[in-house]
Amino acid sequence: MFSEKALKIELSPIERIMERVTSETINLAGGSPDPEVIPVQEIKHAFEEVVAEWGASAFFYPGAGGLEELRKQIRSYASYLGVAGGDVAVTSGAQHALTLLCASLLSGEAFAHENPTFVEGMNPFLFYGGLSLPIRVDQNGLVVEELEARVKSNKPKLVYTVPLCHNPTGVNMSEQRRKKLVELAEKFDFFVVEDDPYRPISEKQPTPLYNFSQERVIYVGSLSKALAPGLRIGFIITKNQELLQRVKALEQMDFSTSTSNQLLASRLLKKGVVTQRLQALREHYKQKMRILVESLKRHQIPLVFEPQGGFFALIDAKKHAEQVAHEALKKGVAVVPAKPFYFDGTGQTHLRISVGPVPKQKIDEGVWILSKVLKC
Amino acid sequence: MFSEKALKIELSPIERIMERVTSETINLAGGSPDPEVIPVQEIKHAFEEVVAEWGASAFFYPGAGGLEELRKQIRSYASYLGVAGGDVAVTSGAQHALTLLCASLLSGEAFAHENPTFVEGMNPFLFYGGLSLPIRVDQNGLVVEELEARVKSNKPKLVYTVPLCHNPTGVNMSEQRRKKLVELAEKFDFFVVEDDPYRPISEKQPTPLYNFSQERVIYVGSLSKALAPGLRIGFIITKNQELLQRVKALEQMDFSTSTSNQLLASRLLKKGVVTQRLQALREHYKQKMRILVESLKRHQIPLVFEPQGGFFALIDAKKHAEQVAHEALKKGVAVVPAKPFYFDGTGQTHLRISVGPVPKQKIDEGVWILSKVLKC
Repeated sequence: MFSEKALKIELSPIERIMERVTSETINLAGGSPDPEVIPVQEIKHAFEEVVAEWGASAFFYPGAGGLEELRKQIRSYASYLGVAGGDVAVTSGAQHALTLLCASLLSGEAFAHENPTFVEGMNPFLFYGGLSLPIRVDQNGLVVEELEARVKSNKPKLVYTVPLCHNPTGVNMSEQRRKKLVELAEKFDFFVVEDDPYRPISEKQPTPLYNFSQERVIYVGSLSKALAPGLRIGFIITKNQELLQRVKALEQMDFSTSTSNQLLASRLLKKGVVTQRLQALREHYKQKMRILVESLKRHQIPLVFEPQGGFFALIDAKKHAEQVAHEALKKGVAVVPAKPFYFDGTGQTHLRISVGPVPKQKIDEGVWILSKVLKC
Repeated sequence: MFSEKALKIELSPIERIMERVTSETINLAGGSPDPEVIPVQEIKHAFEEVVAEWGASAFFYPGAGGLEELRKQIRSYASYLGVAGGDVAVTSGAQHALTLLCASLLSGEAFAHENPTFVEGMNPFLFYGGLSLPIRVDQNGLVVEELEARVKSNKPKLVYTVPLCHNPTGVNMSEQRRKKLVELAEKFDFFVVEDDPYRPISEKQPTPLYNFSQERVIYVGSLSKALAPGLRIGFIITKNQELLQRVKALEQMDFSTSTSNQLLASRLLKKGVVTQRLQALREHYKQKMRILVESLKRHQIPLVFEPQGGFFALIDAKKHAEQVAHEALKKGVAVVPAKPFYFDGTGQTHLRISVGPVPKQKIDEGVWILSKVLKC
């Protein structure tokens, strides 16, 4: 009954775990931001202002490509984040941006990516692409030297990377590797899709890949971490007008994202509500990550990498991670088995731990419970 | 650079015209509902209630498949509309529903559809499907007898239809044809995608195709006409749990639609705000359509079909429609050349006229200006 491609996409381990999370669970699984720092009152106020200013037209069809109102604000926000100029398409979150890019560019061609990598981000690559080339990650991000060898023989059309606060390892790609990756893209004629959702909340601010080559790198950003994921506002930045027009045409297949949310986000950006929060957000998540790392060390749970920021750390349970996650959930702690983040069959004993949604004061308790499960 | 499939999708004539519509234009082009009947204050109030009840969690990731909160309300709303039971997936408007269904079910297979048909609805069929089988429309909708002949030789996997207030002709499929279509689906093993966005605002309420066979028909609905398109709330109804799970998995590629809008729509449905408006909406659009039809007759502009409800009527300009639309826009009236709605190369002289967004008292003026352009 179903298309072969559709059968490639499985319900992700994150979705499956999150379905079983209750308000009692210590949620070390989700990739959502901390509810404590979602600016609910500012959003509410902005919604009132949008309705007062736009009336019924705040609820018209959004049109493909996004409202100019918001595109303009995103251009200026991105420059604040240090992302070099380019034009903007608004998408329904960064995930939708990845899907539009893959639908535009891939039709069975090979693509490369970090291994492990963000399992849900991979879905459109698996759906539209052909051969997947998983490339090792170390403490400095994607091992670009290994990519080079694979590129020569397999000629990927796209390389998918989360070079900052990598999901699920928490590492950052080094400056040297960033330069090298873009050189490879130029030499071997591939595009880099830079998925950069954590930049707004990352203490460290390495140069975006995009800045090294606006021809070869397509930048994907999001307001999900700095504002709220439920608004579904993401964006693509590119200098390539042809690509932008293609994305816009394909966006007719779902008409982009809510008009009122676009106007609301535009307003919050314009008022400076988003940029004014970034310093505090960076401090907030840095503290949470420090608490997590200290707690993991105290409870002798080994990290696979030293996380550099963002929401995620990868640990080695030294036993079957699926079972550990199952047992932990029974004891009230949600974590994500990381095997589905690996595309070479490894990672069976790894778990992804998130400091996103969990209250700061619950992190240590969650890790303590997890450590007991690991000792069983 | 681009995938072959991506190049199949052109920016639609509606998008292109709408980009040139200003607040001064008499808009007989757009498929938006009338701003006058978008319940702005009720939406604003519901948003406040959602924030008060849900706090930050109103802005979490929505998760694939839609919030149970809203799915439950849609099940009951659909039964109010006379759509027989089934389960619900929430989508980002009906357009997104069509895309998810095509991505799930089509991979180069043939598909059939009305000719003319809704040009934007066709995009996912063109993208994912193979051979397109355009089937003639008459005053009673899709000419099912002609479909039968094509089905025998070309074995489509899906038949796409807008059987009520058809876009762009305004006709309804007769009860007899509805039955016959579903019989053919059973006999020749195809699925029918019933795109039914106008049911909430249609005076006439023929039995949904879905009710004739919940196995063979997949129902697609929307809150865009009864509430507001800018909220991006559509839905799929099916009895097929396997299909629903497949749609949910694919919805991970864009994470469905805004969480706060889902909660807002759920609240408006629960409070009865949507259902209480339907009678007035039906009367409103019926009046607008009557004004349009009378005005067209008075100004001797020939209708291709007698519209039965909804937003659209198809006229025959008896000259090159693209030029007429261009001239009309210069004189302040937007209409859509209908050739792109035809998939057999015909329709060069046809124009789609909409009574959706235009103020009631502007319809006759718009038609009068159009008639002058036609006489040039």
